[in-house]
Amino acid sequence: MPESAHSSEPRIGTLAILGVGLIGGSIAAAARRRGLAQRIVGIGRNPSRLEAATQLGLIDCGSTDIAVAEDADLAVVCTPVNQIVADTKDLASVLNSQALITDVGSTKRIVCEELADLDGSNGPAFVGSHPLAGSQLQGFEHADPELFEGRVCVVTPFGASRDIDIQAIEQFWSDLGSVVVRREPREHDRALARTSHLPHLVAAALAGNLQASDTQFAASGFRDTTRIASGDPELWIPILSQNNDAVQQALAQLQTRLGKFSDALQHDDYSALQKLLEEAKRQRDGLD
Amino acid sequence: MPESAHSSEPRIGTLAILGVGLIGGSIAAAARRRGLAQRIVGIGRNPSRLEAATQLGLIDCGSTDIAVAEDADLAVVCTPVNQIVADTKDLASVLNSQALITDVGSTKRIVCEELADLDGSNGPAFVGSHPLAGSQLQGFEHADPELFEGRVCVVTPFGASRDIDIQAIEQFWSDLGSVVVRREPREHDRALARTSHLPHLVAAALAGNLQASDTQFAASGFRDTTRIASGDPELWIPILSQNNDAVQQALAQLQTRLGKFSDALQHDDYSALQKLLEEAKRQRDGLD
Repeated sequence: MPESAHSSEPRIGTLAILGVGLIGGSIAAAARRRGLAQRIVGIGRNPSRLEAATQLGLIDCGSTDIAVAEDADLAVVCTPVNQIVADTKDLASVLNSQALITDVGSTKRIVCEELADLDGSNGPAFVGSHPLAGSQLQGFEHADPELFEGRVCVVTPFGASRDIDIQAIEQFWSDLGSVVVRREPREHDRALARTSHLPHLVAAALAGNLQASDTQFAASGFRDTTRIASGDPELWIPILSQNNDAVQQALAQLQTRLGKFSDALQHDDYSALQKLLEEAKRQRDGLD
Repeated sequence: MPESAHSSEPRIGTLAILGVGLIGGSIAAAARRRGLAQRIVGIGRNPSRLEAATQLGLIDCGSTDIAVAEDADLAVVCTPVNQIVADTKDLASVLNSQALITDVGSTKRIVCEELADLDGSNGPAFVGSHPLAGSQLQGFEHADPELFEGRVCVVTPFGASRDIDIQAIEQFWSDLGSVVVRREPREHDRALARTSHLPHLVAAALAGNLQASDTQFAASGFRDTTRIASGDPELWIPILSQNNDAVQQALAQLQTRLGKFSDALQHDDYSALQKLLEEAKRQRDGLD
């Protein structure tokens, strides 16, 4: 039996977190609780927020200067998906050549393709990640050391990623409590188009079609179905932009299926309609 | 100050409930707790279930014979929407001419049109209702005396309904804790097509499109958005059938809006996409 992470030497000397919000803060809190790192440094844009995160004990120190991460053994990029490539390159320029970098972005293909040179052969190595964990809450004040416990984290090696680096990143998420799943970046993006990005558009379309006089008739079913439409458009536009093709494809498939519902209604074909509803119920019940 | 319902004489002598499931059982439980009726009788198809509901104290007696309701002052029809018209006519044939009948069906236009003759001029009066309260749970074992508390109940007078009958039905729901809203049956059905029936189809389309390999990537957003797809198709087919036109219209509007999302993605028009997401967020945030 291996010793638990708590009682053994921390695996990581210095852990750097770029972007100390809900996810970055939760990684810090989870790493702390599990004794994974000797030291946690945070990088952000707002000195007073970093000071507050330090006061809260989430990070040991924070800076707006990326150079604070120079001693880091592992750096996690927790910025919006359209900033991950630039932020990772900046980090790679200050980290030592043995360091590892990962991210938490909701799209993986473009990020991993554009960072394919960071394969560890000539400097720090990047291996992409996407923990399927989140919250409507924002900010490190809502950081949750158990946010990743039992949740899937997809790790997406690409190109010349070395096994030792992939395994180290998988071990990191596993140590934080995640169930690690390895996928190609493109495969990740296609699946997430169906399970996350398309549902966001559909919820937005339903909510957007609501008429002012309807609001009092919007009960729990409508609220559940449209809850994610409250997500921040500023975060969603880059996700939809980076996964545009897969989202278009998923949307076309959904439109085809909605067309079947429409045909069944037009032709009073309730046996076809029942089959569609039964298939959906079977699939949905299978998730629980 | 009027006396509370508890300390005054019950408004209703005998309350009859046709269909003692989750909703019917909750009406019984709520009426009991609020001292609304001297006596509650249940009518159903299964004698042993009725006996169990009696043992539980929800109803005073139960029978498979509709004649048990003959003394009722108020009868509530809690059967599936495609049975409401026939069940209400059966009830009307045994009730005394001063009695009132209402229902709890999710569609109102067809029910109210087909029962327009029951206007109280020549026998019991029918006034339609739809309490927007429910649960994924089924059966009177899950009856909740607070199910209607603070929830909207739509009352839908039609044709020659008399004010005194409409007001009595509205008072009944108000006494059970509901927030009563009066609407024309057709207007109710159009609003519910957008807020309930269409979301059901959309959730079913999303769930139906899920691929087996996607299930591990279906996180809380997907689960929320598709939760209602677990509903019983046997209950939903009659609802969609009775509100076919309005559902088709709502579906066409949704497809038009999804087409706008698709166009924006195809043309990389992220400013249009952002406007669509912002409009949706504003509408959804407005519900909370």
